[in-house]
Amino acid sequence: MKIVKGGVTTPRGFKANGICCGIKRSGKLDLALITSDIPAAAAGVFTKNSIKAAPLIISQKHIKNGKAQAIICNSGNANCFTGDFGLVYARRTTECVGELLNIPKEDVIVTSTGIIGRALPYTKIEKGAPKLVQGLNAAGASKAAKAIMTTDTKIKEIAGRIIVDNKKVHIGGCAKGSGMVAPNMATMLAFITTDIAISPRMLKMALKEANELSFNRITVDGCMSTNDMVVVMANGMAKNKSITRPGKEYNTFVKALSQVCLDLAKKIVIDGEGATKFIEVKVIGSKTEKQAKEAALTVANSVLVKTAAFGSNPNWGRVAAAIGSLGIDKVTEKNLKIDFSPFDKKEIEIKVDLNIGPHEATVYTSDMSYEYVRINGEYN
Amino acid sequence: MKIVKGGVTTPRGFKANGICCGIKRSGKLDLALITSDIPAAAAGVFTKNSIKAAPLIISQKHIKNGKAQAIICNSGNANCFTGDFGLVYARRTTECVGELLNIPKEDVIVTSTGIIGRALPYTKIEKGAPKLVQGLNAAGASKAAKAIMTTDTKIKEIAGRIIVDNKKVHIGGCAKGSGMVAPNMATMLAFITTDIAISPRMLKMALKEANELSFNRITVDGCMSTNDMVVVMANGMAKNKSITRPGKEYNTFVKALSQVCLDLAKKIVIDGEGATKFIEVKVIGSKTEKQAKEAALTVANSVLVKTAAFGSNPNWGRVAAAIGSLGIDKVTEKNLKIDFSPFDKKEIEIKVDLNIGPHEATVYTSDMSYEYVRINGEYN
Repeated sequence: MKIVKGGVTTPRGFKANGICCGIKRSGKLDLALITSDIPAAAAGVFTKNSIKAAPLIISQKHIKNGKAQAIICNSGNANCFTGDFGLVYARRTTECVGELLNIPKEDVIVTSTGIIGRALPYTKIEKGAPKLVQGLNAAGASKAAKAIMTTDTKIKEIAGRIIVDNKKVHIGGCAKGSGMVAPNMATMLAFITTDIAISPRMLKMALKEANELSFNRITVDGCMSTNDMVVVMANGMAKNKSITRPGKEYNTFVKALSQVCLDLAKKIVIDGEGATKFIEVKVIGSKTEKQAKEAALTVANSVLVKTAAFGSNPNWGRVAAAIGSLGIDKVTEKNLKIDFSPFDKKEIEIKVDLNIGPHEATVYTSDMSYEYVRINGEYN
Repeated sequence: MKIVKGGVTTPRGFKANGICCGIKRSGKLDLALITSDIPAAAAGVFTKNSIKAAPLIISQKHIKNGKAQAIICNSGNANCFTGDFGLVYARRTTECVGELLNIPKEDVIVTSTGIIGRALPYTKIEKGAPKLVQGLNAAGASKAAKAIMTTDTKIKEIAGRIIVDNKKVHIGGCAKGSGMVAPNMATMLAFITTDIAISPRMLKMALKEANELSFNRITVDGCMSTNDMVVVMANGMAKNKSITRPGKEYNTFVKALSQVCLDLAKKIVIDGEGATKFIEVKVIGSKTEKQAKEAALTVANSVLVKTAAFGSNPNWGRVAAAIGSLGIDKVTEKNLKIDFSPFDKKEIEIKVDLNIGPHEATVYTSDMSYEYVRINGEYN
């Protein structure tokens, strides 16, 4: 994939916008909209938390038919733990956007991120929506990427180009926050657009594969949010022969989609609350890939390892103790190998060889600093 | 159980001592010995970490026959990840103590706590041992309790008295550190003495029960150490009819033993690194006790909950997200109930009602502060 400048509006036929509708008291952008000019194939992956925010429940229903044309997202309020009213407001948001865009409400995906347990100030969304729609623009990607931010300090977006069926195909994406990084500021959100022609079924399969190798491989504090969601829309305007089965074209697309997702995932980690370092944990020599991933996540989620990284202290004893805590048969002092890259750098690598098999997995995380404790202790 | 002043030498026929043999550069006490005048029934529970420190491997062998007469413990060096030499030194330590006490080396339990991965300075232990044995004293409990400390700021000991078979029975105990609280400073250790007469089999059963309700219910950072160990010696000098089967006498003993263990466990939590608050997490309304315990541990290990506690921020959204992350069927926004005691106090309680069954469990933890990050980031 060739990386190009841009974001969600780089693929043909997509527009975006971001405005301030008044949910955030700071006056920062807090309402984003991403639309396709024509109905698009759509797929999503959603949090496995048994407590799901209202917009997630609505969006999961709307995406079931494999089709969508708009994604609306507000920041500043997660619309979670908000009872029946939360569901009503989430549904109304899709109706409101649907009417303004003249599309069925079922083709509108709604998402929220921010404080849990406070009523969504829906009237602000309703009042802001016309302006949001009027401002839709093929150059609006960054505004949308900005409007979904909560405690993020940087906009996270990317765009790329590949060749499929001799046609130029584009993929764009934006993301925010990382897995419950923030307090009750919920959530990891990522929105991806592409002009590839692909069936909803294959799009879903592609997103699942890409997600597993990217967003499912990052962790900031091991907490899973009630609002986590990744959504992709594919509008077919690249005019390639539609991908309807596995094969070379599908593989090319999955590879590029994974690259887009991994880029956004890494940006989330780097911008993790209070993060001063980017940590790559690679576990090799496991019996299965699943085992390698579990082991890598255990190391990445160990607050002892994370504080050691913050202190530039290459403490392999903590890594060994974390791996040992899994109680994996035959992983003992004798066969476990641990390597560190220089620990006083901004990007560090921890490599663990279990020496019991041929599989491996890599996960990404950040260190744990005073700043993390401050942000999460003081936020209210 | 009536709490009395004292520690491991309160039960009849036990002596203890603590000296500085030079492992700790600070010159603080670093070598402890607890002995029984006569051979005692003994039982232990050991870390489930697949990476086990050398002394653990030796002690697990020595305790297999259900008998012991001495426990030696050094602090400042964990003798973990120290290869074959670690095993040799741990074995030699038991031989050295056995010779000085004129008992079989198999009746000596050896334990270590401190830095991982550095060779145990065995010659210091060997040189210090005669002085350690000479100083054994029925008033030496606190010295031993002090000599096992690493980053602990307070001595942790307790003694109590119960009536069994019309005889006065005593239980004493001391403990250190908390579940890998400290950096590569390994470990939670607890040593318990009692003059009750009980068979090794019943003693083991009693320790398992007591441990499950105490040390297994605390967590500071969710990390399991390579050196965790709880050992109990029962020398029978209370002259009660020996307990050889379940029943009233056994239950009385288990209850008291559990109380001793829980007291020590709570002291470990309160003295957790950088802890400013003691947190009790009680989960009720679960389908099984195991489920309640798992849910309570998930809340207690959530760094978001722990930092919220540090900031006196009663953030129930984080508790809800932690519970939800378990994906328990039917635990949703509608039936989950969360209660907090006032959050600006030193001791706080978080109560979660899952509303899906009749079981419950309580776990104990501490908050996460700047100090935690400092201690674990800077320690080398």
